Amino acid sequence: MNTKTDPALSSPPARLSTAVILAAGRGTRMKSERPKVMHPLAGRPMLRYLLDNAAQVFDRIVVVIGPGMDDVAALAAPHAVVVQHDRLGTGHAARQAESVFGYGDVAVLYGDNPLITPGTMRALLAQRRCDDTGLALLAMEPADPAKYGRVVTHDGQVVRIVEWADATPAERAIGLCNAGVLCADAADFRRWLDGISNDNAQGEYYLGDVVARAVADGRHVRAVVAPEDELRGINSRAELAQAEACVQARLRQAAMAGGTTLVAPDTVFLCADTVLEPDTVVHPHVVFGPGVHVRRGTEIHAFSHVEGAVVGPDAQIGPYARLRPGTDVGAQARVGNFVELKATTLGAGAKASHLTYLGNATVGARANIGAGTITCNYDGVFKHATEIGADSFIGSDSVLVAPVRVGARALTAAGSVITHDVPDGAMALGRARQANRAGHADTFRDRLKKKKEQG
Amino acid sequence: MNTKTDPALSSPPARLSTAVILAAGRGTRMKSERPKVMHPLAGRPMLRYLLDNAAQVFDRIVVVIGPGMDDVAALAAPHAVVVQHDRLGTGHAARQAESVFGYGDVAVLYGDNPLITPGTMRALLAQRRCDDTGLALLAMEPADPAKYGRVVTHDGQVVRIVEWADATPAERAIGLCNAGVLCADAADFRRWLDGISNDNAQGEYYLGDVVARAVADGRHVRAVVAPEDELRGINSRAELAQAEACVQARLRQAAMAGGTTLVAPDTVFLCADTVLEPDTVVHPHVVFGPGVHVRRGTEIHAFSHVEGAVVGPDAQIGPYARLRPGTDVGAQARVGNFVELKATTLGAGAKASHLTYLGNATVGARANIGAGTITCNYDGVFKHATEIGADSFIGSDSVLVAPVRVGARALTAAGSVITHDVPDGAMALGRARQANRAGHADTFRDRLKKKKEQG
Amino acid sequence: MNTKTDPALSSPPARLSTAVILAAGRGTRMKSERPKVMHPLAGRPMLRYLLDNAAQVFDRIVVVIGPGMDDVAALAAPHAVVVQHDRLGTGHAARQAESVFGYGDVAVLYGDNPLITPGTMRALLAQRRCDDTGLALLAMEPADPAKYGRVVTHDGQVVRIVEWADATPAERAIGLCNAGVLCADAADFRRWLDGISNDNAQGEYYLGDVVARAVADGRHVRAVVAPEDELRGINSRAELAQAEACVQARLRQAAMAGGTTLVAPDTVFLCADTVLEPDTVVHPHVVFGPGVHVRRGTEIHAFSHVEGAVVGPDAQIGPYARLRPGTDVGAQARVGNFVELKATTLGAGAKASHLTYLGNATVGARANIGAGTITCNYDGVFKHATEIGADSFIGSDSVLVAPVRVGARALTAAGSVITHDVPDGAMALGRARQANRAGHADTFRDRLKKKKEQG
Repeated sequence: MNTKTDPALSSPPARLSTAVILAAGRGTRMKSERPKVMHPLAGRPMLRYLLDNAAQVFDRIVVVIGPGMDDVAALAAPHAVVVQHDRLGTGHAARQAESVFGYGDVAVLYGDNPLITPGTMRALLAQRRCDDTGLALLAMEPADPAKYGRVVTHDGQVVRIVEWADATPAERAIGLCNAGVLCADAADFRRWLDGISNDNAQGEYYLGDVVARAVADGRHVRAVVAPEDELRGINSRAELAQAEACVQARLRQAAMAGGTTLVAPDTVFLCADTVLEPDTVVHPHVVFGPGVHVRRGTEIHAFSHVEGAVVGPDAQIGPYARLRPGTDVGAQARVGNFVELKATTLGAGAKASHLTYLGNATVGARANIGAGTITCNYDGVFKHATEIGADSFIGSDSVLVAPVRVGARALTAAGSVITHDVPDGAMALGRARQANRAGHADTFRDRLKKKKEQG
Repeated sequence: MNTKTDPALSSPPARLSTAVILAAGRGTRMKSERPKVMHPLAGRPMLRYLLDNAAQVFDRIVVVIGPGMDDVAALAAPHAVVVQHDRLGTGHAARQAESVFGYGDVAVLYGDNPLITPGTMRALLAQRRCDDTGLALLAMEPADPAKYGRVVTHDGQVVRIVEWADATPAERAIGLCNAGVLCADAADFRRWLDGISNDNAQGEYYLGDVVARAVADGRHVRAVVAPEDELRGINSRAELAQAEACVQARLRQAAMAGGTTLVAPDTVFLCADTVLEPDTVVHPHVVFGPGVHVRRGTEIHAFSHVEGAVVGPDAQIGPYARLRPGTDVGAQARVGNFVELKATTLGAGAKASHLTYLGNATVGARANIGAGTITCNYDGVFKHATEIGADSFIGSDSVLVAPVRVGARALTAAGSVITHDVPDGAMALGRARQANRAGHADTFRDRLKKKKEQG
Repeated sequence: MNTKTDPALSSPPARLSTAVILAAGRGTRMKSERPKVMHPLAGRPMLRYLLDNAAQVFDRIVVVIGPGMDDVAALAAPHAVVVQHDRLGTGHAARQAESVFGYGDVAVLYGDNPLITPGTMRALLAQRRCDDTGLALLAMEPADPAKYGRVVTHDGQVVRIVEWADATPAERAIGLCNAGVLCADAADFRRWLDGISNDNAQGEYYLGDVVARAVADGRHVRAVVAPEDELRGINSRAELAQAEACVQARLRQAAMAGGTTLVAPDTVFLCADTVLEPDTVVHPHVVFGPGVHVRRGTEIHAFSHVEGAVVGPDAQIGPYARLRPGTDVGAQARVGNFVELKATTLGAGAKASHLTYLGNATVGARANIGAGTITCNYDGVFKHATEIGADSFIGSDSVLVAPVRVGARALTAAGSVITHDVPDGAMALGRARQANRAGHADTFRDRLKKKKEQG
């Protein structure tokens, strides 16, 4: 309450920084009804990456979206959103945000360029804040410069951006390419944006023309060079796949550096939030969805699909294990092949080894779930819970009709349908008696064969 | 009927074109009992590609096969087939087809060189038909020319093909390599083929020697340069795998260009006829067999195997879904993990989510198929149909013994064996009642332990 | 008994050769509680490769381990093991083995450098035994020499090893890099090792300093150049993954050269002992564990996981087939999707096509195992056997409670629990009768809906 003692007020006010993210593009080359920035990488919309990273660097974020892009606006919240109603180019898009530029520094980023790291954003902002820099831009030195615009420099300053089509052979030989990302003081940016024209073949306002305005203003323009991997744009599904590969490669390297064995890294797909503790082993062909934590000593075997699950320590998962959200697999537990767990806790040392579905279940320690066990947890409207006690033994091909409780140390006979609770230590049977009919198989088969011969 | 008005008859007769495909090789390095050209690429015999592509360009196709290659002859039908009884080289093989060369232009292609596109075939034929060209051949400029024969040119004309072994250092420095494919007028070709000898280390007649004959005849020989990817031969399983990778890369690029997200393209395997509509998403580790059409908005999750199926729109498939030929999955339907569908129609909004086998079944809209449901569609001789009504609910672990009909809105109790029709809106039960025996599990376990201690 | 006639005794005694394998490193960068050399490649601890390969070349093997590495000692047995108690560098490690150097030639290898082939080891030893060579070392010419130490040579002799950090620009331009592996006469080696000091930044004894000692002694030091792939060390999980990729690539190439089609080699994982006969086909996404033999004409479909199994000839496996140790699948038999076999023999022409678990079972020829069949082979303590006769037909969703025998030509009705033997040709039923309750499904659903509306 006593503002006088607030040190923030007595220090000089920090210079404000704003990131404007252009996200209005429909992405024609994606051939999608979904806005381009909503396409996912490692399971999250690409815009999400930019929002999360920019939030680490900039004070404010403004997202420029197209009309009707409610899903993008929802994703951007609580950040400000501005709608670009006409598609008149990137310069025009940036101008839509002018009213919210405020003061301080403004950087313009691209929603379809989502892999820029906070470090690179910080470097861009820092360069802009070096006293004599009027405009800072991001550049790269791609292995194959292809048809990128070239950054022409002189004495360490950018003097011109030249598009590939307009470049002389000498300019084409330049390795430094324009990434399109710019940062300037809000007032300058506003003035330069107002100065660009759409007098070109496409009739569009190009954000890149701001560079020429800054140079014309006699301001210093400087390039910050960042890795190509961070600056590649995503304009097609093929480029989306390349970006995904890039994200996956980063995640795999980080997992291995942290002490996880990935037997065949290229066949393992991770999420940004996947936690693999040291001395976990992931075999070939494994897919992780969001929300996974694998504890030390756990092994994930081939063809497993793990999502929203906490596993281990020292558990054995798969092959062909399907762990769905809400799964908790205890220490030294085992989940075998063709087994699906959903919203289920498997106690320490418990086993579900073959062809099983456990949903909304709690399984006690050391319980053994026989092959072909199925929890019948859904009645068409409600989901019901199944409780399976410690040290119990569920016979093969049992059906547990929830809500139901099988007690500790209890046993269900193979092939039983369990509709009522089973007390601790009790044995439950729910199956018909077998009857053999001598010779009937032979007779049956003969009849079928005759029928077949008769056509 | 009035032939006078038929313009085809009044125009000058088109020049005939014939493709001779050499397919007699056994492919020793393949170490296979199967003829080399029958080995598949993306699910189809490699010869199939050449036949389909050549049929787009040439008027007639003749296939030279080895003795006993009935499967190759069957595949080649209705095109003509000639048998090469002795294995005396490529020149000898081509001569076997001389009698059917007819008139017009003849191109000799190789059955183990299946990736040549119609465009390249057309370019070869067009080059041959440039007035002064006596012989046209295909050449390439491989990244690694290795030990390919070199094409020696002078003033834009081919003057000699020189084998690697015989080449001077200067000739080895030539980047243009011989792909072996030739095209000439039938009469010329016949004469040149008759002129080649087997006076060489292997005692074989080499088709390539035709080039020297043409040059000796004073005819112009011209090379058409085509991409290396089209011209690589397949002589070993490793080269087969490379060709497969090449075909898959083309198919994946085409799918992405068409608006499909392939999260990890390198882990998805397509067929030449796979149709993926825009805004479909294919997750990592998915295999498509022949005859698949996936409609807009459908997502195919990891570890799915889809073959002979029409799916969607907006369906969710997998993970671990196995769709076999004759499957039709409706709009917004779901096929979950460890679920196999064969010759089955799943209605709009219907779900089969876990551990299920549906064969020869028709499932109505919005029906819910419980975990572990199995249609018993085979009696050892005949297959029978199962009909499951709209809005019905099949309890978990139900067995439906076909032929059988479960009515609309009907319900089967979990664990039931359904052998008779269930009327609309009825509930069917076919399971035993549960009985609990207090303490029996403890007793049973004690007995087993004692037995174990006694060894 | 008559030693006089033993020719080994009358010929001059062969010169002894000893391989010293340094395996004491904990591998900090692996972030593992497991000793580095115990991490597996293609399913076997990396040290195993070195032991097996060295045993083909050297008369004796000595492994230097760290304290408490009982598992490494066990793996090394019956070879000698020496414990390095203090971690004072590679030179110090090698000195621990001095007492067992004996006489003859000694080579020092690294446990984390496991891909050196016997051929390269032989070349090293042979080079050492060329009369004037005092010390032989392994070198490589890596594509990216990075920061490897450089091997400085003059007149074909090594004059110095210079570490990257200490190298002049001219030395850094040298392409020949040090792999660290050395071979010398035991007495020389002992003397040189005794001569090295720990007067360096790390205070460690470096084995590489032996080279300078040898040169100072006026002895000829010569480098044997070997492929980079053999000489790369494994210091991190990422390098472990690279080595795995290298091993897999070798195994895949060998499989293809032997006549197996790998449709997508990069997605197939083999073991060192996997036997694939000619004309087998392995589809994408297949994992082989140890102990597999696949016979001619067999096809392994996608997403299969095969371990400890003999399969074929002409069998069809998968997709999604899981064969575990002790499986024998006969000629023309079929194992379909979501089917697991363990310690089970499947007779010629028998089929288990869907959602089945067979453990400790013997299945006769041509038997048909229905979808959802489960052998109940475990009672919580003991495993029991199931015998299924030839030409029998196991109805869908049958449970076979072992020990049990289903006779030849017998039939079990769908959904039956079989607890007693079924005679040959008999039909067994063990299921309840179906009852339909008219309108009950509608009533049930109405009740649920009402309950839902009431919250």
